[in-house]
This record gives sequence, C-alpha cells and structure tokens, in this order.
Amino acid sequence: MEKILRIDVGAEGGPRATESPLGEYAGLGGRALTSAIVSKEVPPLSHPLGAGNKLVIAPGLLSGTTAAMSGRMSVGAKSPLTGGIKEANSGGQPSQVLARLGYAAIVLEGRPRDDTLYKVFINKDGINITADNSLKTLGNYDLVEKIKDEYGDKVACISIGPAGEMKMSAASVAFTDMEQRPTRHAGRGGMGAVMGSKNIKVIVLDDSGMKMRSPKDPKAFKEAGKKWVEGLRKHPVTGEGLPAYGTNVLTNVINEAGAYPTNNFLLGRFEGCSAISGETQAETEKARGGLATHGCHRGCIIKCSGIYVDKDGNYVTKQPEYETVWAHGGNCGINDLDVIAMIDRLDDDFGLDTIEMGATIAVAMEAGLAKFGDGQAAINLVKEVGKGTHLGRILGNGAAVTGRVFGVERVPVVKGQAMPAYDPRAVQGIGVTYATSPMGADHTAGYAVATNILGIGGKVDPMKPEGQVDLSRNLQIATAALDSTGMCVFVAFAMLDQPDTFQALIDMINGFYGMSLTETDVNELGKAVLKQERDFNRNAGFTAGHDRLPEFFKSQALPPHNVVFNVKDEDLDQVFNW
Amino acid sequence: MEKILRIDVGAEGGPRATESPLGEYAGLGGRALTSAIVSKEVPPLSHPLGAGNKLVIAPGLLSGTTAAMSGRMSVGAKSPLTGGIKEANSGGQPSQVLARLGYAAIVLEGRPRDDTLYKVFINKDGINITADNSLKTLGNYDLVEKIKDEYGDKVACISIGPAGEMKMSAASVAFTDMEQRPTRHAGRGGMGAVMGSKNIKVIVLDDSGMKMRSPKDPKAFKEAGKKWVEGLRKHPVTGEGLPAYGTNVLTNVINEAGAYPTNNFLLGRFEGCSAISGETQAETEKARGGLATHGCHRGCIIKCSGIYVDKDGNYVTKQPEYETVWAHGGNCGINDLDVIAMIDRLDDDFGLDTIEMGATIAVAMEAGLAKFGDGQAAINLVKEVGKGTHLGRILGNGAAVTGRVFGVERVPVVKGQAMPAYDPRAVQGIGVTYATSPMGADHTAGYAVATNILGIGGKVDPMKPEGQVDLSRNLQIATAALDSTGMCVFVAFAMLDQPDTFQALIDMINGFYGMSLTETDVNELGKAVLKQERDFNRNAGFTAGHDRLPEFFKSQALPPHNVVFNVKDEDLDQVFNW
Repeated sequence: MEKILRIDVGAEGGPRATESPLGEYAGLGGRALTSAIVSKEVPPLSHPLGAGNKLVIAPGLLSGTTAAMSGRMSVGAKSPLTGGIKEANSGGQPSQVLARLGYAAIVLEGRPRDDTLYKVFINKDGINITADNSLKTLGNYDLVEKIKDEYGDKVACISIGPAGEMKMSAASVAFTDMEQRPTRHAGRGGMGAVMGSKNIKVIVLDDSGMKMRSPKDPKAFKEAGKKWVEGLRKHPVTGEGLPAYGTNVLTNVINEAGAYPTNNFLLGRFEGCSAISGETQAETEKARGGLATHGCHRGCIIKCSGIYVDKDGNYVTKQPEYETVWAHGGNCGINDLDVIAMIDRLDDDFGLDTIEMGATIAVAMEAGLAKFGDGQAAINLVKEVGKGTHLGRILGNGAAVTGRVFGVERVPVVKGQAMPAYDPRAVQGIGVTYATSPMGADHTAGYAVATNILGIGGKVDPMKPEGQVDLSRNLQIATAALDSTGMCVFVAFAMLDQPDTFQALIDMINGFYGMSLTETDVNELGKAVLKQERDFNRNAGFTAGHDRLPEFFKSQALPPHNVVFNVKDEDLDQVFNW
Repeated sequence: MEKILRIDVGAEGGPRATESPLGEYAGLGGRALTSAIVSKEVPPLSHPLGAGNKLVIAPGLLSGTTAAMSGRMSVGAKSPLTGGIKEANSGGQPSQVLARLGYAAIVLEGRPRDDTLYKVFINKDGINITADNSLKTLGNYDLVEKIKDEYGDKVACISIGPAGEMKMSAASVAFTDMEQRPTRHAGRGGMGAVMGSKNIKVIVLDDSGMKMRSPKDPKAFKEAGKKWVEGLRKHPVTGEGLPAYGTNVLTNVINEAGAYPTNNFLLGRFEGCSAISGETQAETEKARGGLATHGCHRGCIIKCSGIYVDKDGNYVTKQPEYETVWAHGGNCGINDLDVIAMIDRLDDDFGLDTIEMGATIAVAMEAGLAKFGDGQAAINLVKEVGKGTHLGRILGNGAAVTGRVFGVERVPVVKGQAMPAYDPRAVQGIGVTYATSPMGADHTAGYAVATNILGIGGKVDPMKPEGQVDLSRNLQIATAALDSTGMCVFVAFAMLDQPDTFQALIDMINGFYGMSLTETDVNELGKAVLKQERDFNRNAGFTAGHDRLPEFFKSQALPPHNVVFNVKDEDLDQVFNW
C-alpha cells in the first residue's frame, strides 16, 4: 500500500494507467485518504459528473492485514447527490485484495473522449484496461457472472450497475462478497454515478501470488490483535446481538423507542414491525435453509450478515440490513420480508443505495404514485429505475429530486441526501449528526443512536436537546478516524464501552506501522479529516444554513411521543467548534 | 394603495381575507415591498411550498396613476426554483387595476386544509373568495374565458395554469393584457408553484367605479410626466427600435456580437438567426394581418409588443419576446417562428416561464431526448409538461432538475435558474449579473448588455473582465429601485442616456407622493432592497459559492470569439461592496 494507481480516462487512445508513490498522502488510508485527495485535487465548484471530479477508492490503513474486521473500503468524490464532498464505505472482499496488491488508492480522473465502456483488471503483473461495450446496461449480478467466466472465481469486483451508467445520483458502487456476489455497496451519495461518468464499468482485482501485508512489529501487532478479537467477542452487541440477528436486531428496539420512521416520517411506530424484525428475519432464513450468521469479507468475526432465500430455499439476496429493511419496509408501510428482499436484490443489481431508494419510494407514495403498504407497487417503481424510464430516472436521482418533481413538501433530506432509519425527533443526537455531517444525512457519520437508545458509551436522553451536540461531535470525530482504518463501523460498540478494545485498535496500528500514536493523535486525525471535508464544502458553497433539518421536523410532532426536533440552530453551529 | 390584503388559505372553513394598513411597509411598492414582506415574514429555511412561504403580489409605486409605463406588477416569495428570495415582475392590466382598487399588496399565506381550489374576486365592494373545483387543470386561456363568462369583459386576471397547480418550479403567474388574454407572466423562479401551493387558481380584479389614483402635487406630477414621455419618445431604443420590432430587435444584434447562445450554449452564433429575427417577425405579423406595435397595458407608450397570427390570420399568441424567441429558437437550434409562437402559446396556457422552458428543452436535447433543430419534437416536449406526464414533470421543474435527472453536465443555470439569451462569455457584464444577482441568472436584474453591446450608458468591452463588476453593481442597484416604481424596465434605456429622463421619473414620484427624493435616495433604496434580498439568501444558506457561473463557462471557449468567462471570483465577491 505504498502507491497510488491513477487512471486518466480522458487520455488519447483510451484510459491510461500510471502509478506513483503516496508522496504527500503517506500515512493516510480509507476516508482520510479519499477526503485528502478530493480536497486537494477536485475544484469544489466543479460539476460532479465533469472532468474536474475524481473517484477515489481507498482501502483502510489495516486492510489487507490479518487484523479482524479490517475489510472496509472507502470511496470518495464530489457527490452528485449532495454537491459536497463524500466518502461512502463498504465491506466485501475488494478492500483486502486491493491492499494486498499494494495500492493505497485507485483514482479515476479526467473526462472520457467517447462513450466506450471499459473494464480494468489488476493483478500482481500490473494493470490491464480493455474496452468492452458488451458490459453496457448489465446488472451487477450478470456482470459479475460474466467476469467470473473470464477471470475465474478468485477475483474480487468493484462495479456499477445500470444506475451508475445512467449517472443517477442514487447510484452505488458495488463490491463482491466472499461468494463473489455484488451484495456490498458504497451506497450513499451517488458514487456510482461518478464511476459511470468515467465510463469504467468494473475493476477486477486478483491478488493471486500476493502475500498478506506484514507488520513492522509482528509481536506487538499480534498481541493487540488478540485483545481486539477478545474485546469484540465479549461485548453483547458485537458478540451476540449482531451475529444472531444482524443489524436488523434494531427494528424492534427502534420501534419500541418510538423512533422508527413510518410512512415517510409521519409516525414513529410501525404496526407491521414484528413481521420484518431481525428476529423474524433470522427465523425465516433458518427455516428456509438460508443463513442468519455470515461475514461479508474474510477476517470478519462479527458476522452480522446472512443469506436470504425464498420459500423454496433459492438464493435471493444477502440478508438485508436494518436500514434497508426499514427503508423498503416500515418507511413505505410494507411489512413483508420477501418484498423487501426482492427490492434489496433489485437495488444491488441496478446498483442503487437502498436507503436513498426507500426514502424515495416513500416520497413517491406521499405524492400519490402508490399507496403506503403496497409492496408490489414498490417493486414496480424500483424496476422503473433499472429500465431508465422517465419515472425511473426521477426516482433514481433520489428523494430530493423526486420531491421536487412531484411538488412534495415532506422530504426527509439534509444536503440533498435522504435520512436513514432513525427519526431525529425521537433520537435527537442522530438529528445533530444528520444536520451537521459534511456527508449529508448519514447515521454512520456519528451514530448517536448508540448512546441515545442503546445505552452504549454512556446515556443521553434521546428526546431532549441537552448533551446531543457534544455527543454527536465526539462520535463524528471518532468515526472520521475509524473510517480511515478500514475497520467496520460496528467495532465502535465495543470500543465505546471498553477502553481496552479502543486501545487494542491503536496498538494494532502502532504495531503494524511501527508508530506510537495515542488516543489524542487518533482524535486529531478525526478532527483533521472533518475540517478538510468542511472546508471543501464551504468552498463548494455550503454554509450554516445547510446544517439544518427540513422544517417539518421542527413543526410537526412525531407520535407516539409527540416530540419535535428541538436542538437550537446556534447549538448546531457549535458541533465543529472543538 | 394604503392597505394590504392578506388571504389566509389555511383558515377554518376556507380562505379568509383580512385588510390591514401598510404600517411598517409604508412608502414601499413593487419589488421593494415584496422583498420586504418576504424578508420579514418568511423564515429563510422554510419549504417554498409549505405553510411558511407567502406569495406577495404588489403593484409599483406609480401603478394606477396616469404615469406612462407604470403597469408592472411584482410577485415575490421564497422561490421553489432557486431556494432564495424571488421577485418576478410582469406587465399586463392587473397592476393598474389592483392599485386603483387601493391595494399595495395581496399576500397569500398559510397552508390549505384540503385540495379545494379557490377563486378570488375583488371589486370596490370588497373581497369574495369562492371554492371552484371546475377550474382545476384549466389552461390560462380557457380559464380566462370562463372568468369572462362569469364576470364580464372588463376584469383583469392573475392566474395559474396546470403547471402552477402541479407546483412545478418553472410555473409562472399569468396576467391578462388589454385584450383579456393571459399573455403577460411573472415568469421566473416558480412563483406559479407557490400560488398553486396556496390553492388559489385566479384572482379576478374589477376596478369599476374606482378612480385613477390622484397625486399630492398634481401640477408637478403632470409636468414631470410630460418630460418623461418626451424622453422616452426621443430615445432611439424606446422611441424607434422597440416600437417597430419589439424586443426581438435584439436577435440580429446579439447574434452579430457572437453572444447568441446556440444549441444549449455551445455556440455564440446561430445560422438560422435571420429567419427568427425581430425584423422577420414584424414583417410576418404585418403581412398576415397581425400587429407589430402594441402595448401590453393601458398607459404604455413604447408598445414593444404585438400580435402574432398564423398563416390564415388567426390569433396564436402575443408577439414572442426576444428571450422567448431565443429560448425556443436558437438555443434549441430552431429557426421557425411559427414553431416558436406555438410554444409561446403553450407556455402561456400551461403557465410556464419561457426562458426556463427553452433552456430546459435544450438541456433535454443535449441529453438526447430530441435533436437540436427539431421543432415538432420541442412542441411535443412542452405538451408533456401540460399533461403532467413523468417526463413533463421533469421538464416543468426546469433546466437544473432536467440536467440532474438525465445526467447532463452542461446546464446553464445559476442558483438553479436558467440563463437568458446572452452568453456570459461574450457579454461578461451580464455574466456578473447572472452570477451575483440574488434572483439567480436573470438579465433584467442588471442589464449590462445595454452598455456591453448596445453602447447605452457608456461603453464597456463585452469580452474583457475590466469594468464589468462596477457596471453590474450600478445596474443592479438602479434596477432594484426601478422595479419598485412599477415602471417597465425598458424605460432604463432612455434613463441611462438622458439624465433629464431619469430626473423626470424622480420628479413624478415626488409630485405624486409629495416627497423630495434625490437620485441619491433612489440609489439608497436600490441598495437597501438588494441588501435585504442578500440577507435573506444568506440565511437561506447561500454563500459566495453560489455567486458563480457553472464551470464550463470558464473552461469551454465560445465560438466565434473563442472566449471564456474570465471575471475573477474575488472580483465577483466585490459586487455588493459599495
């Protein structure tokens, strides 16, 4: 991971690859690296689909090592959805593989000269870029099958579906999992559209013949790694809840808290919740011969994923995440796991962010295009996106555009990005994160739900404004640092409650790189990343007015607690004053 | 004009009208009044289609008097198109009539309780608001016919077409002309969508029994009025060019200058220009039995309008303006006046801004939905908007949304509003106005074309950055003041060249109101209006990053002069430092 691969897609005669040392970016990985490159190299006012934008794909600092949970990949660019800087990250195999191939980042840059579509193949011998228009309009599933036919069943893929080719703002970048299925996505912010604008359909990675990355201090690294695994295994969330039920364990919890956004954020509780809960989902999977406990990449020990199969036991999709189940379930009034799984499969195949799409379908329902609760109608709407009909193009550009086109007022977005599965009126800490994160509404940017609802990392009353700004600030700083390590965000549950586990991560980094970082250094890294991102956004035209929730969260009370979002604007403006 | 009529559309039992004295708004008219009310009463972060927004309709200070050219009406709100404050103004009869009825403004406020559509009738006896769902989906032409059947042929109408009912961001507010046709529009910024969100279809005005407004100092007013008329008559633009050929006299001039945006701002000259010039248009109208010289309201002496008829002499539409001919003509590669007139008629009927729609069709053509130059395809696209199909809803929300939905990079907008008929690379002064006006890209906000191209009010080289900031600043200040008087913006040509004519306007205001304003006072009014608008926008989230042209104007040279926009960002930031 000492070099950067740049692909100039505008070069004469077709895309040209060049390799260069990390240089000024040395020591950075994941989000710290994507945000640094975007900040330094992309003009903030450039068009997200134009020559000035760059798509940066970067493994985390510990990706490609033996460290457990280190398989996250960051994807960064100026976002076509928000107009600001974006980092979306994903699990799956490619992060480990790319890191072992020695690349700290792949940067797609320039403007294609024509509409030829390309595939990129990278192995120990180098880079091969080939024009291949036969890949045009392929869904991610068919695409990966085709790639397997050509390159075998050991490769890992980074790809876009038709949504990315159509440059839709809800388009994701897909990553293959251990079974070589395109089920893992850097979903948020339209990173797939940026990849589409560079005319790169797929990057195929083959690390055959490459070794595991080796630490500078093998002993210290190994010891820390052991404590790390112990810490994750002993915490009830990472050791029990997530393995047993996956992220969807949250459905009952958030619904009970009255914070489960239902029917386009109209209600805080969903009547049909038990039919789509993690408990029901795991039971269904097990009864049908699927799998309820499964990792998304080698080296995962939490195993919060699973395999969702139909009534006949045939594979449909990976176990849909909590936010997906909510987005296509309760938020649309839908209480049918099979419908949700079918849409999850469609989203993965077309290459779409499930959160954005679920929020969008709900806005479309509010506009009268379908009835809340009508699962078949929801499936049909998502199919429109894949077909690229006019309606599909509206929906594929997300909730804000859909609300605009159909004249809907209640559109739950911040900075143009749809809110995830926690109503900010009943979880005010996550509301602060939604409002202020440079990423737009994003639960993973500072997951205050942990402390507001789950009692992890302390306790802050979810319904009151007090303490939420401090909570969100600390979490946003920690997350910005964590997103740079390649670690799955779920490790945070154990790290927040167990100082030893936090220290174990720092010790792993120190052992691997031969450094002596302290907790303070990690904090400073997080702050530096956030500052860089905020600076980019300010230069792109963002101001305090963009760090706000839509007005209806302040004026329309959410049942059952009948609460509005009441963190004051001036307090929101203090989140980044540290 | 001593009172404000407020209609609370959310009142129990249906909209409720109340009248109040001007109070703190005394002394303001037109844009100064709409911007003051919006600034003071609309929360900057409120949703443009929500309960917090207000639609303000205000005649100018001299409307309803005998002053020539005083028939402009201002319409203001938070814009669904730009997200900022908006004032769009229009000719036609209603301004004079509303002023004579004694109203300084009508304010539509609140949120409707259901989807019942209402009509408002105002005469000397008061206000009558009636539910009338039979008006739903009516085009402006059919609507006005229906209103004439009910209220007779003396009334003036302010109305929305289906685009406004569908809350499209390109929806206009229509005003009837002297022939009771809905041909005059407050087009820009989606004011029709805000009216639509208040469920008011039409406001019918009848000033029977009301007198002309009488001046405090009749002698001074009359004398100044005489000088005013003399000044307008003797200037070559207002006395000759505009009466003979209308605003479309500019087609040959701007094309010759290489500043005529062609095929979605790809070229600066249009080959088919002579077929759609003002000269050809006037000749065609006269040959067919139409009219080439005609006023849009009583009291107009410039008479830049006309009547466009088909080959059989049947009325099609009013004489399309230069910007309309450009938008639906050269900007789409279309060189057929009959096609342009047909689309102008459709725009007026559906209630759409012709500039936004022309720019949108060109972006759609760039996206491949039709070929540049295909007139029938352009007509069909606009018809989709009227029908409210999914494609129509995309297009009806303007160029920025259309570009976003179809993944087009070259979208000529500032603050989400489409640029008018002057390429900012070849008329850099108007580029400064586009970039910095609080209204979004708007030629009327500071018409630097006058000085850059026409040699009016001095001479500043159009291709060079030098002097453009000062030019645009001065024009924006003067225009903000002028837009408050009710005067047609075309009086500015004479005022810029003839200090006596400028003074005559000030003397008319002084004579009418018994005041003693100086040129300095008028300037200060303009500055105060702009400051208020900029403050609103800042609080709505706008920053210097929004005072920029899209990047392609800086990177893609415009033929034939091969020039890019090169006013520096830091100079743009000086426009409002006075």
